[in-house]
Amino acid sequence: MPSRIFNFFPGPCTLPLSVLEKARDEFVNYQDSGMSLWETSHRTPAYEEIHNAAKDLMHEVFQIPDTHDILMISGGGTLQFAMIPMNFLTAGKFAQHVITGWWAKRALDDARSVGDARVIASSEDVNYKYVPKDFKVDPKAEYLYVTTNNTIVGSELHEYPETGDIPIIADMSSDILTRPVPWDRIGLSFAGLTKNLGPGGMAVVIARKDMIEKSNKSLPTYLRYDIHSEHNSMFNTPAMFCIYIMKGILEWTKEQGGLEAMDRKADWRANKIYGVIDKYPEYYQCLVDKQDRSRTNLCFRLPTKEMDKKFSIEALAENMSGLAGYFQYGFCRASLYNAMPDEGVEKLEQFMIDFMERNPA
Amino acid sequence: MPSRIFNFFPGPCTLPLSVLEKARDEFVNYQDSGMSLWETSHRTPAYEEIHNAAKDLMHEVFQIPDTHDILMISGGGTLQFAMIPMNFLTAGKFAQHVITGWWAKRALDDARSVGDARVIASSEDVNYKYVPKDFKVDPKAEYLYVTTNNTIVGSELHEYPETGDIPIIADMSSDILTRPVPWDRIGLSFAGLTKNLGPGGMAVVIARKDMIEKSNKSLPTYLRYDIHSEHNSMFNTPAMFCIYIMKGILEWTKEQGGLEAMDRKADWRANKIYGVIDKYPEYYQCLVDKQDRSRTNLCFRLPTKEMDKKFSIEALAENMSGLAGYFQYGFCRASLYNAMPDEGVEKLEQFMIDFMERNPA
Repeated sequence: MPSRIFNFFPGPCTLPLSVLEKARDEFVNYQDSGMSLWETSHRTPAYEEIHNAAKDLMHEVFQIPDTHDILMISGGGTLQFAMIPMNFLTAGKFAQHVITGWWAKRALDDARSVGDARVIASSEDVNYKYVPKDFKVDPKAEYLYVTTNNTIVGSELHEYPETGDIPIIADMSSDILTRPVPWDRIGLSFAGLTKNLGPGGMAVVIARKDMIEKSNKSLPTYLRYDIHSEHNSMFNTPAMFCIYIMKGILEWTKEQGGLEAMDRKADWRANKIYGVIDKYPEYYQCLVDKQDRSRTNLCFRLPTKEMDKKFSIEALAENMSGLAGYFQYGFCRASLYNAMPDEGVEKLEQFMIDFMERNPA
Repeated sequence: MPSRIFNFFPGPCTLPLSVLEKARDEFVNYQDSGMSLWETSHRTPAYEEIHNAAKDLMHEVFQIPDTHDILMISGGGTLQFAMIPMNFLTAGKFAQHVITGWWAKRALDDARSVGDARVIASSEDVNYKYVPKDFKVDPKAEYLYVTTNNTIVGSELHEYPETGDIPIIADMSSDILTRPVPWDRIGLSFAGLTKNLGPGGMAVVIARKDMIEKSNKSLPTYLRYDIHSEHNSMFNTPAMFCIYIMKGILEWTKEQGGLEAMDRKADWRANKIYGVIDKYPEYYQCLVDKQDRSRTNLCFRLPTKEMDKKFSIEALAENMSGLAGYFQYGFCRASLYNAMPDEGVEKLEQFMIDFMERNPA
């Protein structure tokens, strides 16, 4: 195996090599302190500098206004499925959910175990092949819940809905840091770290300060957003490794040209691969409607299930891993996160053409 | 600064150097896979091997019978303060808590936000200077909650209480893997990873299978022990870095002679330092009664607060860090976790004598 593979896994996923190399170089003896960062108290200036820089960079690179605070909460995106309704869906309130995929459904199920979560629109009946847009939010709803990118079928919410005064709560796990966000509409958003931000085990939560104030004060402390906010995400020992790598990735993102560069690059990558798919529609078929296709997770079928399987196996032999679809289903999926090198995209593009020629339908 | 310092921080704390060096060496390209472990899907054999080995080693090294399951839950010990009462302290039930320190108090406060948590015994009125033992558990209680080691004042529960059929729930965060545990009495125990097990951001939960079955099924999924157990702690993307390091530390622990060796070593370390304290009782004074002193966190006062401060500053100049007491208080604290090298203990012992001679009371 060569020392570096092109990694198309949907998450955990490819990270910037320079960030990994720097982490390795300072892994055992952090900045000449005589210990690793993972042995350093989180109450020391050495760690606090990283912690606060990660937050500041997140504000800067993702263009988040000061109306919103950034929380770093161990537990991942799945814990947010619980914390959101527990904090905001208290008695007498209701939320409206847009159901665009498997994770949106799981968030709904968790919300329903807590309170009154209603479906405003869903494409579940057609295997999530499109993203519903034609709905009107109830002005009495506490929030509208959306999933901005659906990793399993490969669809994306390209335009955030207009919701008037109703805050949007958005699961941005798989397209965070790929495009500007209308922050004035976002009450709270979150992302498990494992895509464009780092290793698993933690979520970044970006929450409007008035939403944080609305946290349910009768919950145990760890589950309250206001507690994490008041303590600068150091109420408990933070996931220091995750935050350290996240800081490195945000620095790298900035060096690459920031959010606009990531946005352009996401277009370029998606156009390359969808270009092949659209050129050979008899051979490659997406799982979702063209206007709703994801720029991050590109899901497609070959003429047969056997060819789907052969595709990912032969790709692996050519140094491209993670091209099989979601583990319970068939199909192929190319996840093109921010850290995917251009050569990886070009190599996959050529491989798709070569594979088709070698394996006619 | 030399390349390695003696690190007496209470947590995050010193870890075995060989584990860190191995992690560094395979950090960027894990086992020739062409990617780091943090970029590898948790659904791959490469990661699953680590995940399951960590669990198996935990069973083996900590001598945990098959009556108990091991869960690895992102979020740390503080999330367990919430999950325990949410799962087990449902309507009509009550728990009894032994209050031996600041963390025990926090767990009580969180439990009270959920249900009927009662104090069975407390030493709060005397600044936790002893560990209450003279209590009788109510046979109708759902569980007895104890904190086995108190990091802030430096006391330890040396004998697990006899509770008849009532399960003990134990916060073992700071003395896990230092001594055998009467597992037949333990319904559930947990430890934030940051002491004898690894980096922050995750807790290990060791739970009796019948307790897991009793999980509150009406909670959001992430907060249910039964869900984590059914999914082998892969219901969501696990904290792979934490689990990887934990596996390395468990391997190291086994190589060092396992639990009995850790137990003997903890005695040796504590005897060294308490030996100085007991020899010079006019100069060094513990915060807690002799019979309840912790082997892990040794807290002591010098004749004046100024001398406390001077002690930790001068120790740092001699390559020993983290000897100041809890950040809100004065006093000194030497945390002697499993990975503390013998030389660190011997050096501290000699420093205590030298410091006293240089700075008479």
